[in-house]
Amino acid sequence: MKIVIIGGEAAGMSAAAKARRTDRDAEIIVFEQSQVVSFGACGLPYFIGDSFDDSGFMAERSVAQFRESGIDLRVGHRVERLDPAKRSLLVTDLARGRSFPQPFDKLMIATGAAPVAPPIEGLDLERVFFLKTLEDGLALKPLVQSDEIRDVVVIGAGYIGLEVAEALVHQGKRVRVIERTDRVLSESFDAEIGEMIEAELREKGVKLHLGESVTALEGEAQVRQVASELGQYPADLVILATGVRPNTGFLADSGIDRLANGAIVIDPQGRTSLPDVYAAGDCATVPHRVSGRPAYLPLATSANKLGRMIGENLCGNQKVFPGTLGSAGVKVLGVEAGRTGLSEREARSLGLAYRTVVINDKNTTNYVAGQSDLRVKLVYAEEDKRLLGGQVAGGPGAVLRVDALAAAIHGGLTTEDLGMLDLVYAPPFARTWDALNVAGNVAK
Amino acid sequence: MKIVIIGGEAAGMSAAAKARRTDRDAEIIVFEQSQVVSFGACGLPYFIGDSFDDSGFMAERSVAQFRESGIDLRVGHRVERLDPAKRSLLVTDLARGRSFPQPFDKLMIATGAAPVAPPIEGLDLERVFFLKTLEDGLALKPLVQSDEIRDVVVIGAGYIGLEVAEALVHQGKRVRVIERTDRVLSESFDAEIGEMIEAELREKGVKLHLGESVTALEGEAQVRQVASELGQYPADLVILATGVRPNTGFLADSGIDRLANGAIVIDPQGRTSLPDVYAAGDCATVPHRVSGRPAYLPLATSANKLGRMIGENLCGNQKVFPGTLGSAGVKVLGVEAGRTGLSEREARSLGLAYRTVVINDKNTTNYVAGQSDLRVKLVYAEEDKRLLGGQVAGGPGAVLRVDALAAAIHGGLTTEDLGMLDLVYAPPFARTWDALNVAGNVAK
Repeated sequence: MKIVIIGGEAAGMSAAAKARRTDRDAEIIVFEQSQVVSFGACGLPYFIGDSFDDSGFMAERSVAQFRESGIDLRVGHRVERLDPAKRSLLVTDLARGRSFPQPFDKLMIATGAAPVAPPIEGLDLERVFFLKTLEDGLALKPLVQSDEIRDVVVIGAGYIGLEVAEALVHQGKRVRVIERTDRVLSESFDAEIGEMIEAELREKGVKLHLGESVTALEGEAQVRQVASELGQYPADLVILATGVRPNTGFLADSGIDRLANGAIVIDPQGRTSLPDVYAAGDCATVPHRVSGRPAYLPLATSANKLGRMIGENLCGNQKVFPGTLGSAGVKVLGVEAGRTGLSEREARSLGLAYRTVVINDKNTTNYVAGQSDLRVKLVYAEEDKRLLGGQVAGGPGAVLRVDALAAAIHGGLTTEDLGMLDLVYAPPFARTWDALNVAGNVAK
Repeated sequence: MKIVIIGGEAAGMSAAAKARRTDRDAEIIVFEQSQVVSFGACGLPYFIGDSFDDSGFMAERSVAQFRESGIDLRVGHRVERLDPAKRSLLVTDLARGRSFPQPFDKLMIATGAAPVAPPIEGLDLERVFFLKTLEDGLALKPLVQSDEIRDVVVIGAGYIGLEVAEALVHQGKRVRVIERTDRVLSESFDAEIGEMIEAELREKGVKLHLGESVTALEGEAQVRQVASELGQYPADLVILATGVRPNTGFLADSGIDRLANGAIVIDPQGRTSLPDVYAAGDCATVPHRVSGRPAYLPLATSANKLGRMIGENLCGNQKVFPGTLGSAGVKVLGVEAGRTGLSEREARSLGLAYRTVVINDKNTTNYVAGQSDLRVKLVYAEEDKRLLGGQVAGGPGAVLRVDALAAAIHGGLTTEDLGMLDLVYAPPFARTWDALNVAGNVAK
């Protein structure tokens, strides 16, 4: 049996490794366009923020390690076309400049996503960066460490934009974040949680421009300033973190079902609309446990979990993915924020009959040094009080509390269950009634 | 309606406050033997460790505050006898030295527990302390701060014993912990988890004697040394943390059902075997969610939750407690440990067909400063892989991960569910596969 996987990041390499362990005899070929595999872009803000110097830390395993395990891993190969009827790919060997057909019995598409470039002038100036690849990180790090760079503008206030802003503050830069929508993390979090991060950014000296669109990057050869409808801002360096789009253009004539943004739609077994073709990772949707619908949530967690499961299904198993909750978290300077399940915005857009509750509490007993604020927001079904989603922000312990909410939502718990849930109490970790208990009890 | 509550700590005052809010007309009388109410003994190790100076932090609310809310709170009153047939108590006003009968319509017993004194000589020497009451803390604190006290022996390696040991290390004392069983926290944790705490104690200079019984405390007026079967150890101060026993001696002739240790048995509505008599807190059992049996687990969390629920049921409601998981956690110097559900020892003693898995992992990605070890142990049903219990120890985030296990057990999740559970990933908080996912996936 010939298994072909397109893309060597989290989803593709998880699938390859699991398929290798599941079926000792199958031929497993992976095509990766770059020279790097199993690379986690989520380390890049920490790399340029100088948390560590060895860029190898950002990859789980090397090309050589995968090859030693019996995977035919071909870097520098780009897949140009999929012919589903012939079960064949057209592949280009980039180094040699030649193309060849590649037949398959089972195919997995894991081509990831690429940064979305906003429709503005000046993206071709020097010192303008996206932050997605290892190359981006290697080029940015010395610049960020240079004293020449004082004013940095980050465009986009999603996870990566905010983590980069933190890294730049730690490097002593003057940091400005410009975000088109009126909130940070507006895709993931509701306003009550986002505003805690906004307050922290401003308190730590970050200039935060919300509801403002950049119109141009200006300068001679190098970028010198960023222009918006509202002003011009000095910029020795610009980092764009304006979201990603699935790398699925090569499938345009394949007949595969995709969402409007190009994400390949998969079912809970990881199957696409084409027979024997699977997909996962940032190029595909993820089945959502709460909504029951395919969602576009490009997160490393689902990429790994679906990748591993598809590795088994490529070998003939019929494993079923239990569904994502869109769980995610971020640390921004002194504040943590995490989320799981549906936000209020998502519940509303799905037309659900829901309620919400927001409570403010503390993370430890009053007498523990470093006690900090916690804010908990719950979204729950109006009818039976079943938890649909939760968000927590504040000091230490905010994000890990979201894991308890994720388990609660996975298990179908109600707000009443949460109110009486036996969560750990000890003075350094919680109050006797944990903030999650309080939120559950306050929900009516 | 006349509601009488015996005992003014967590369970009793939670019930009184909730009953007051539930029924505006009921007469609510609380008898408390001491002068202090709503006192949490769990703060004492932090108080003597000098984390804070205002002992008021350890009480949720004052006597005056409860009285203002319309609760007839009588401190300095000891209940001597319960006559269930007459629905009457015999109460002594300690200040006046006079006794009187007190009729009730509904009664709640929340008399707590008292330290168990080990059967050894010398407990009456000076500088020998239990650590249970506010008076204990107030007397101990100046001694612990005095340079005269160099060698301190802690007898008992349960939660309080270990928290006290930590506090003493922070105060620069030479600390010796002597424990009768062969492990620390042997009531709550299995050996794989306990040994991480033992290693940490020894690394930080605590002399740890396991499987060793103290035979006598020796000295003239003040204690000078501690003797065991194996040796004599210098001691300027001795702190006993050798467990507690329910304060239920006054019920001996009442006909109420009790366990062998004296704990009053209650059902999931908080009812004892006597009509209209409820009990909760350290004097009573707790319905266990996993075993389905009454367990003796004297923890503040269950005391508060059952207290609050009984407050409603005293007013005619029929709320049902979902059951405890015995969730608990502790920080000992640089190590955290938490547990929920059944330990392996408990599963074995219940005769369950179970399996276990232990994994070693890390709490963050490799490139985050301060990455530390995590060890996870799961106990699960052999037949259907349903989670029965979990324990986590290690660096930051160990204890809060137990909350996710608690929610998973409450919701009936299996190890397979846990393996694919959508837990939060971000570099400062977890790896892409959280340690809990790994444990779930390794479990067979």
